[in-house]
Amino acid sequence: MKEKLWGGRFKSFTDKNVDEFNASIGFDKRLWREDIEGSLGYCRALGKAGIISEDKVEVISDALKEIYREIEKGDFSFDEGMEDIHTHIEKALIDKVGDIGETIHTGRSRNDQVALDTRLFLRASIIEIDRVAREFQLSLVEVAEKHLDWIIPGYTHLQRAQPVLLSHHLLAYYEMLKRDRQRYEEVLQRTNILPLGSAALAGTTFGLDREFLSRELKMDGITSNSMDAVSDRDFVAEFIFTSALLMMHLSRLCEELILWSTEEFNFIEISDSFATGSSIMPQKKNPDIPELIRGKTGRIYGNLISVLTMMKGIPLTYNKDMQEDKEPIFDTVDTVKNSLGIFTLLLKEIQFKRNNLYGAVEKGYLVATDLADYLVRKGMTFRKAHYVVGDIILAAQKKGVEFNDMNLNEMKSFSALIEDDIYEAIKPFSCINNRNIPGGTGIEMVKAALNKAREDLKL
Amino acid sequence: MKEKLWGGRFKSFTDKNVDEFNASIGFDKRLWREDIEGSLGYCRALGKAGIISEDKVEVISDALKEIYREIEKGDFSFDEGMEDIHTHIEKALIDKVGDIGETIHTGRSRNDQVALDTRLFLRASIIEIDRVAREFQLSLVEVAEKHLDWIIPGYTHLQRAQPVLLSHHLLAYYEMLKRDRQRYEEVLQRTNILPLGSAALAGTTFGLDREFLSRELKMDGITSNSMDAVSDRDFVAEFIFTSALLMMHLSRLCEELILWSTEEFNFIEISDSFATGSSIMPQKKNPDIPELIRGKTGRIYGNLISVLTMMKGIPLTYNKDMQEDKEPIFDTVDTVKNSLGIFTLLLKEIQFKRNNLYGAVEKGYLVATDLADYLVRKGMTFRKAHYVVGDIILAAQKKGVEFNDMNLNEMKSFSALIEDDIYEAIKPFSCINNRNIPGGTGIEMVKAALNKAREDLKL
Amino acid sequence: MKEKLWGGRFKSFTDKNVDEFNASIGFDKRLWREDIEGSLGYCRALGKAGIISEDKVEVISDALKEIYREIEKGDFSFDEGMEDIHTHIEKALIDKVGDIGETIHTGRSRNDQVALDTRLFLRASIIEIDRVAREFQLSLVEVAEKHLDWIIPGYTHLQRAQPVLLSHHLLAYYEMLKRDRQRYEEVLQRTNILPLGSAALAGTTFGLDREFLSRELKMDGITSNSMDAVSDRDFVAEFIFTSALLMMHLSRLCEELILWSTEEFNFIEISDSFATGSSIMPQKKNPDIPELIRGKTGRIYGNLISVLTMMKGIPLTYNKDMQEDKEPIFDTVDTVKNSLGIFTLLLKEIQFKRNNLYGAVEKGYLVATDLADYLVRKGMTFRKAHYVVGDIILAAQKKGVEFNDMNLNEMKSFSALIEDDIYEAIKPFSCINNRNIPGGTGIEMVKAALNKAREDLKL
Amino acid sequence: MKEKLWGGRFKSFTDKNVDEFNASIGFDKRLWREDIEGSLGYCRALGKAGIISEDKVEVISDALKEIYREIEKGDFSFDEGMEDIHTHIEKALIDKVGDIGETIHTGRSRNDQVALDTRLFLRASIIEIDRVAREFQLSLVEVAEKHLDWIIPGYTHLQRAQPVLLSHHLLAYYEMLKRDRQRYEEVLQRTNILPLGSAALAGTTFGLDREFLSRELKMDGITSNSMDAVSDRDFVAEFIFTSALLMMHLSRLCEELILWSTEEFNFIEISDSFATGSSIMPQKKNPDIPELIRGKTGRIYGNLISVLTMMKGIPLTYNKDMQEDKEPIFDTVDTVKNSLGIFTLLLKEIQFKRNNLYGAVEKGYLVATDLADYLVRKGMTFRKAHYVVGDIILAAQKKGVEFNDMNLNEMKSFSALIEDDIYEAIKPFSCINNRNIPGGTGIEMVKAALNKAREDLKL
Repeated sequence: MKEKLWGGRFKSFTDKNVDEFNASIGFDKRLWREDIEGSLGYCRALGKAGIISEDKVEVISDALKEIYREIEKGDFSFDEGMEDIHTHIEKALIDKVGDIGETIHTGRSRNDQVALDTRLFLRASIIEIDRVAREFQLSLVEVAEKHLDWIIPGYTHLQRAQPVLLSHHLLAYYEMLKRDRQRYEEVLQRTNILPLGSAALAGTTFGLDREFLSRELKMDGITSNSMDAVSDRDFVAEFIFTSALLMMHLSRLCEELILWSTEEFNFIEISDSFATGSSIMPQKKNPDIPELIRGKTGRIYGNLISVLTMMKGIPLTYNKDMQEDKEPIFDTVDTVKNSLGIFTLLLKEIQFKRNNLYGAVEKGYLVATDLADYLVRKGMTFRKAHYVVGDIILAAQKKGVEFNDMNLNEMKSFSALIEDDIYEAIKPFSCINNRNIPGGTGIEMVKAALNKAREDLKL
Repeated sequence: MKEKLWGGRFKSFTDKNVDEFNASIGFDKRLWREDIEGSLGYCRALGKAGIISEDKVEVISDALKEIYREIEKGDFSFDEGMEDIHTHIEKALIDKVGDIGETIHTGRSRNDQVALDTRLFLRASIIEIDRVAREFQLSLVEVAEKHLDWIIPGYTHLQRAQPVLLSHHLLAYYEMLKRDRQRYEEVLQRTNILPLGSAALAGTTFGLDREFLSRELKMDGITSNSMDAVSDRDFVAEFIFTSALLMMHLSRLCEELILWSTEEFNFIEISDSFATGSSIMPQKKNPDIPELIRGKTGRIYGNLISVLTMMKGIPLTYNKDMQEDKEPIFDTVDTVKNSLGIFTLLLKEIQFKRNNLYGAVEKGYLVATDLADYLVRKGMTFRKAHYVVGDIILAAQKKGVEFNDMNLNEMKSFSALIEDDIYEAIKPFSCINNRNIPGGTGIEMVKAALNKAREDLKL
Repeated sequence: MKEKLWGGRFKSFTDKNVDEFNASIGFDKRLWREDIEGSLGYCRALGKAGIISEDKVEVISDALKEIYREIEKGDFSFDEGMEDIHTHIEKALIDKVGDIGETIHTGRSRNDQVALDTRLFLRASIIEIDRVAREFQLSLVEVAEKHLDWIIPGYTHLQRAQPVLLSHHLLAYYEMLKRDRQRYEEVLQRTNILPLGSAALAGTTFGLDREFLSRELKMDGITSNSMDAVSDRDFVAEFIFTSALLMMHLSRLCEELILWSTEEFNFIEISDSFATGSSIMPQKKNPDIPELIRGKTGRIYGNLISVLTMMKGIPLTYNKDMQEDKEPIFDTVDTVKNSLGIFTLLLKEIQFKRNNLYGAVEKGYLVATDLADYLVRKGMTFRKAHYVVGDIILAAQKKGVEFNDMNLNEMKSFSALIEDDIYEAIKPFSCINNRNIPGGTGIEMVKAALNKAREDLKL
Repeated sequence: MKEKLWGGRFKSFTDKNVDEFNASIGFDKRLWREDIEGSLGYCRALGKAGIISEDKVEVISDALKEIYREIEKGDFSFDEGMEDIHTHIEKALIDKVGDIGETIHTGRSRNDQVALDTRLFLRASIIEIDRVAREFQLSLVEVAEKHLDWIIPGYTHLQRAQPVLLSHHLLAYYEMLKRDRQRYEEVLQRTNILPLGSAALAGTTFGLDREFLSRELKMDGITSNSMDAVSDRDFVAEFIFTSALLMMHLSRLCEELILWSTEEFNFIEISDSFATGSSIMPQKKNPDIPELIRGKTGRIYGNLISVLTMMKGIPLTYNKDMQEDKEPIFDTVDTVKNSLGIFTLLLKEIQFKRNNLYGAVEKGYLVATDLADYLVRKGMTFRKAHYVVGDIILAAQKKGVEFNDMNLNEMKSFSALIEDDIYEAIKPFSCINNRNIPGGTGIEMVKAALNKAREDLKL
């Protein structure tokens, strides 16, 4: 029982099956940095409050730092028999400094300690994810700049709809990621708050200066209610949800890359070093990475449901159920970071096929809206113009031609408003540049959007 | 075909089964206010851009307002045969003003129109939910103030842990709701952005002043990329997620009210007018409302998964799948609003039983931590103190008594550090007031928290 | 209070907000058929047990049937003020026959009554869904038969992999639906079990012949434990899960139809009457139905999570949370039935484009595996053959040709094992017929599979 | 490239980041047993088909068995650089036997191979889970038998409802597990089907005797459509769903054990060796195991959503997304097995407190229904009786007494039908034995249920 932090009133040892089932050390050892970081700060705060003398603070701090270095160097052997990382570090501390080490837990409970560790871990993770997300955005911007005026079919319902710039298309994802990063920033603010001082649930009786401790740990404030503080996992759910949206965004781009890689679309070629083959079909070259990322979306949705289900209907304050928050956190951090990282590399390995993209724009009456808009500018109502263009398309389809293949007389037979400026009006590039409205695909607008993105990314 | 906005190139009528299956009018008619509001603004913007002459703007606006009043008064008969609310309102407009009405859709697509309507609807809904959430918080504060110094057992693992103030316990929920409202506020900011001008996907060709239109519709800005704008439903998922967290919080309080209403806890009595009975067991009085709200948590989790699944892996831009966002939105708005509303009323109908609460605090060694802390203050390390108190408890349990029932000699036999100030130190109220740390349950701290809450709620 | 089934011990009326919030009549009125059907059976069982005299059984039965007819004809006005359908029907009965009607609830609780009604409703729904699922399968078989020997590229990773028969591809979905129907059949067996007699939770005290009642209601047995019986919703979750799998299957076929409808694949044309257009782009023809069905998949996943969340962690026996099972059930039944129904019609409206399908097979080295298998048959190990074919493909790609375009000498330069029988061996149809293994795409195998399907569908 | 099974046509090595991201060896090495088992069978089938000579079959089989033993003994070092377990084993085989080993993959693809391995793994896992589930049921039965006639309050809405036998209550869980095991059995039948022979997607060209191979691998049949076979993961989703229901059932029992362990209910004591303490509160004894299992319910719900999301909307046939099925499977198997295992042990460590249970039954008018039923038997309608009993309760509550404390005259004042046999009629044990209906809590019924359970468990 001696290695438990709580054995006092217990008459018998816990069953070893119970120990195994309860133990979190198998996964929460990943929190070792945060656990030591938190204890270092807590120790200073106990010193400031006069609970531990300053020289003992030094002794404890030195020992904690030594443990940190040992783990970092791989010289620390984790004992799966220990209940959790908190117990393990405290035990290691006491092994080093003896009784003095026993003071570190004064006025602290594992309830507020694990809340702190989790918050510190997520703080670091969000900052890291934000960094890789920014790099991914940068990659998008670079690819967009490189193909600034390349034309691609814009789709609705996966049907060719209107010509757009490839750069405009890519910037749509830039915007999604921008929102993702904004959301992470907001989660970070709610995460980077100090729960220590809440103790088990009611607050510590040792007059800790929580604001001081918060500053020591570079946090943005302190929690306002101790019972809430030890049983709040909102920030965990928020983090996973934000990640779920991000993965959903990636899944959409993945779907597009998969489509564009098909023989049928044939819009892009992924370099050999970023694709894989088949064990049976020698000709195959598969877009495994986008497929895998698309699949991993489910993983994060699943993690979200795990945490939401876990928290449903449990009374205040801490309940052991909450131990189940760690693995979804770790898995989400790894999945998002790795997916963004590999995707950033992948973007650089995609070769767009200009002719195929443009060829696709020329077929399928993508400029029909512009033809209708042309009629509107000549005085027709939009509804009528829509019908007139519908008729032209039916006739063209019957003959198996595109608008460009019809001569002016044929065109005029549908509306006298049509004149010889029509051919200029329905060139794909004209159609694009007619959309010179903020947010539109007009090239000046896209240039402005790219400049704005470059500026945002400097921050 | 004439009532479709898109019939032009189609050679045959759509099958009526198809019409029925595709139609959204059955549920999206709920967006009639927003659809008209959006069209009124759009019409003015078309006027400003010179697409529609100012007098026609007047004619159209007057007709739209008339339709608004008709629907409001119930004089408008919705035709389930119409495809959607947008088609329906436009048809009604044309019926009133003839050809002029056909100009309203110039440069607009249902893709950006439905995005606008949804955003306007969510804007209004979030503001309304924020209002009822604030009222719920106010109720919590009032109940907390009314029972400021009532003592209740604080629980971890649903085991009595330490005495806390009932008001402190209730304020934990205040904090959760505070975060919920903060999140709604952030979603609102991302929601209240103008998508109009994006048209189908590439931007309109009619030089609309989008910033002007945004101000007209009291929105906070314009979307930055047209392709993103017509296929972005992040704000929908965010809204539902935020609601899921809120419902999760309510589910925890529900669980507690259900527990407290049991014969076993017997901490509260819900008034007859807020409970129900059994069709077979005459003695039953059931806490139906908290049970039902707890159950409805699943509903919102489900809505969240619906929307996330819907968006997974669909390519840019708009796809018909997205029509499935409406019902989860409506259901979430209604569920959250009604749950908060009835809960606010319910809080006022709960009678707390002071003696039972206090009785529960006196039994179960809830002040054990304070006994340990007492020893720490006398010089023992916390780890040792924890073991000493464990021994005292074992002895007390054996005799079937509480700490108070043991005399000083008995106490001293466990540690010579124990003196006669011990009895004062472990009175529940002493224990509470020892936690005079920000966020703790000390009465001065709780008073300060209540004052802070009152101040926040004024805003 | 008089219209409540439970008002006895209550001192005050329930608040009208509470009534509204608690009421399920708004949706559970859909169970009217089952509620009356159940009461008719229960009444006979009470008669058999001697609790109600036979003449009163007649009176009650006649009145219940009259109510049935009234509702069926639309002559019954549902009062949203009534708590639920059970209360409403009982009230209507008492209105018709007076005090005698009050005996119908003897030994019954709404807890076992609602369990019965739900089971009867699901029984009917599953039978109906099975019927439409069978029709959908029939449609698949018919389309497969009609295009028996049409060749289409088979895909893995959405890359052309090997030639397959279109009919083989369609039969893959037949198999999925076959499993779906098998699962529904199993759910049906667990659903069609009588809970009546369980009363509130402990069993009725009136010596009911439960087996008799089970037979009267055409059920397959009786529940074995009353506490389980009133709080079991496994069959609900199972039904929704089974539906979720079915919708997932449909979502895959939808994805394919959407792909095949693109300008890029151009494998199929959906008839005008089963597609829709755009309000702004006159050329558009959108595959709305498959998109919408794909989107509705999320809806059913959501319903599943709703019910699973609702049931998580609630103690025995009935809790009000469970009232939340109805709407997910109704929504799932409607969604699955309508999706299958419209899909069955849609299948008939799809025109496959034989030349485009075959053209796609001829490009992309789809027969590479057969080339490798050819080498294996000539004595090479498969691993080596895989590499040799890889080399041939690299050479072919460099020249921009397909295998057929390379002459024998060129071929032989990669392996002396290649002889002039190679060209026959890699004809698409040869490749297909080489796969004459049960489950394979060889035409004789597909014919056999179609025969088997026809036989299965007769049942 | 030499260690890839598919490198032939690739001009450059895959990026090492790609290799890492794609690799599944980190988790799918867990399938080593199944992979070797499958290859052993496949090798024999190739021999039977004459593709490999019988002596080579021997050589390969011996080498595979040697690899098996090496891994079993821990003498095999897994190389995280290998792509997956299939590649790894094949590589090891070739290292042992040279070129001969290259024949093993003839006519097989990783697509059908991984489907087989997964099916074999799930087959073994389901059988193992069924075993531990049966043991859990056995534990329930033993505890029920040990406390056969102990009376406990039965609850609805967590309000005391009617007296029931503790054994009856426990058997409710027996029934749930019985359904769970039935569902696993059904999943097993759909899982234990041979996909080999499907090759990549279209079927192998080597005339394999699939029925023979199926028997060799002790499977129950062969898949019917090769395209379905390589892209079917229904059995995975089914397995996880079945596990989700099982965990939901456990979560309900967990909730009850947590409640019963509270100071307030005080119905049970969990032995010290199966509970844990607090690092700060010396008096605490926490029911960690049931809390943790309740929390793990979320984990399995999450795994279910992961797999369902992964499969949504992906076209035929195999897509890389599907690689994401493994970890949810492994996690679900481990969670269910461990939860059931520890729960079985826990059940034996629970001490029920007979007096407290009975005391709870005597307070709260739990026999009110029986009082009403008594009146019905004397001739009153049930609805009237319900109201009369309601009045008696109101009077009793006012005086603060239970029914037993009221004398006959008081009783009679509510209804002349009440006579002195009333006191016998409302004894808890009478109430229980009045429920002598199949499925009811009457002791004879419970005995019969226990006998039935014992019999079922023999199988």
